[in-house]
Amino acid sequence: MNGPGSAAGVPASDSITLPPAVCVLGLGLIGGSLLRAAGGMLPASGWSPTASTRTDAGAAGFEVHQQLETALEWAADHHALVVLAAPVTAFDRLLRKITRYSPEVLLTDVGSVKGPVAEQVSAIAPHTRYIGSHPMAGTTKSGFGAGNDQLFRGAVWVTCLDATSSLDAWDAIAGLALAVGSTVVPCTAVAHDQAVARISHLPHLLALALAQVAELGGPLALSLAAGSFTDATRVAATRPELIRVMCEANREPLVDAFDDALGILGVARGSLASTGSLQKITDGGHDARMAFEHRQDDLRDVRIEQPSLDDLITLGNSGGFVSQIQRTASTRTVLGREPS
Amino acid sequence: MNGPGSAAGVPASDSITLPPAVCVLGLGLIGGSLLRAAGGMLPASGWSPTASTRTDAGAAGFEVHQQLETALEWAADHHALVVLAAPVTAFDRLLRKITRYSPEVLLTDVGSVKGPVAEQVSAIAPHTRYIGSHPMAGTTKSGFGAGNDQLFRGAVWVTCLDATSSLDAWDAIAGLALAVGSTVVPCTAVAHDQAVARISHLPHLLALALAQVAELGGPLALSLAAGSFTDATRVAATRPELIRVMCEANREPLVDAFDDALGILGVARGSLASTGSLQKITDGGHDARMAFEHRQDDLRDVRIEQPSLDDLITLGNSGGFVSQIQRTASTRTVLGREPS
Repeated sequence: MNGPGSAAGVPASDSITLPPAVCVLGLGLIGGSLLRAAGGMLPASGWSPTASTRTDAGAAGFEVHQQLETALEWAADHHALVVLAAPVTAFDRLLRKITRYSPEVLLTDVGSVKGPVAEQVSAIAPHTRYIGSHPMAGTTKSGFGAGNDQLFRGAVWVTCLDATSSLDAWDAIAGLALAVGSTVVPCTAVAHDQAVARISHLPHLLALALAQVAELGGPLALSLAAGSFTDATRVAATRPELIRVMCEANREPLVDAFDDALGILGVARGSLASTGSLQKITDGGHDARMAFEHRQDDLRDVRIEQPSLDDLITLGNSGGFVSQIQRTASTRTVLGREPS
Repeated sequence: MNGPGSAAGVPASDSITLPPAVCVLGLGLIGGSLLRAAGGMLPASGWSPTASTRTDAGAAGFEVHQQLETALEWAADHHALVVLAAPVTAFDRLLRKITRYSPEVLLTDVGSVKGPVAEQVSAIAPHTRYIGSHPMAGTTKSGFGAGNDQLFRGAVWVTCLDATSSLDAWDAIAGLALAVGSTVVPCTAVAHDQAVARISHLPHLLALALAQVAELGGPLALSLAAGSFTDATRVAATRPELIRVMCEANREPLVDAFDDALGILGVARGSLASTGSLQKITDGGHDARMAFEHRQDDLRDVRIEQPSLDDLITLGNSGGFVSQIQRTASTRTVLGREPS
């Protein structure tokens, strides 16, 4: 899984770690985009439970398996990274098939909640070499036709690690993420799930609530709605069952995020009704948005030789990221950015 | 104030009603943009309390008064429409000067809350011919330099009417709005304030709350934030004192909007924590966003001859708008779209 070789133990500065091949199960927006992006650089194939999607992907020039079993045999033969890109509700069935047809395969998934999936993999497919992924990329559109090979360029791609993770497996999965143009954030599944409850799941629910508050205002409210409303409710156009599955799977962290939001909004409402002041929320919210806009201003370059799992987790949890992995037969060096 | 004349009582189909001149008091984003847009079609001048803004506007080729008094004398001499484009906190002083220097002037303001301003005008400058305006246009930037003459193109421009409003004054103010590229929604100040609490003020406060919830998640949350968070918190980058003044001025309607939002979010939080289901908010919110996206699908053309104030208010309150006003010496015809 190393990149171009190097002589006499001198690390090749441009070496890239990639899996030998990729097999994508589920060809919606994310899976279809990954098949397109990876297909240009290594052997890649895919499968979808939907006949019309298989036809579309085949017509677009990709190798598509008609049967899940065939896809998994292809993956085992090619030492491929198997990517679960189906809805999380399909993972149980997919993992059972993997256990049967390719039990020790290199495995990732691209679901938006990572703790429950890690537990599922441990329970059903414990011999796979699994690292959970979450590419923070998407649109409000779904389906194979909505994808493109540039979807991951400039995105953050989360890789989830714990004490049992294989760094070799991480090399291959993080290497693919880097190769398709993302930066890689390593962190624990718990930390990931808490973070996305706040920056992805709660934003979807606030958008859904706001759309309803506007609708309660009647036709005049909808006819006056402009930029701030349009932007704030954009993700409410996403297929509601997709939002629902994503958010319900992250129950406890999302309840915590809800409580923080309800607390901040409740204080603001009470202050407005009693004293007429909104200063606390306007000042605090502006400062927080500025902290977001300037989140990368204080990052500095970092180079970690022979990183441990803890080194990588610490890098991601602190707000840093990986931009390059250099491998030789005996060394691993990670380059990236970290808070200064 | 009529447009090009017509012969023998036949309405000219392209006649436009415009004020003879425009004098803009306050040259920030909205005022500066209006000076630019109106300056190309009729005599226009402006004033700002800030010397550097006056210098900038003068350097951009506009007629700028150094003194407020001079501006108001110019407005009286030119039968100009005076536009209050300053922060609402400055209106008291401006209205007192207007009462002294141009007490019967044609007047509008572009503040984002209309009921309190109408009361202020009645109390301080009761002889002005006042129609409140709210152009639903803006960016997160502020100041003269952020403006442009295309800001109002494609926007909705609210004009507020009540039983005492002058239709001749409305012709001139709505005519200017149409001339700078907006469509005009006539409605009552009360209905406007209730609507904007839901589609402008609450969205700002949800954005501010969300930014804080993300910040509470620490540096990992901020580093993973992508499209849904960035869009949902965009308006939190606005200068906080501007959001604060705008929202605090619309206290009662905003408390109502807060309560609807807290109710919807509280039910969703409770359902997630107890049963694990978010179906009510995902389905209801999606339907509401679709209602917004399709709000103009069922509109049909409408033509109202000699409209009453009530006709215009009914048109706007029901979700319709005005796209053209045709005047002759004795007739007024309004063209637009209304719900079918």
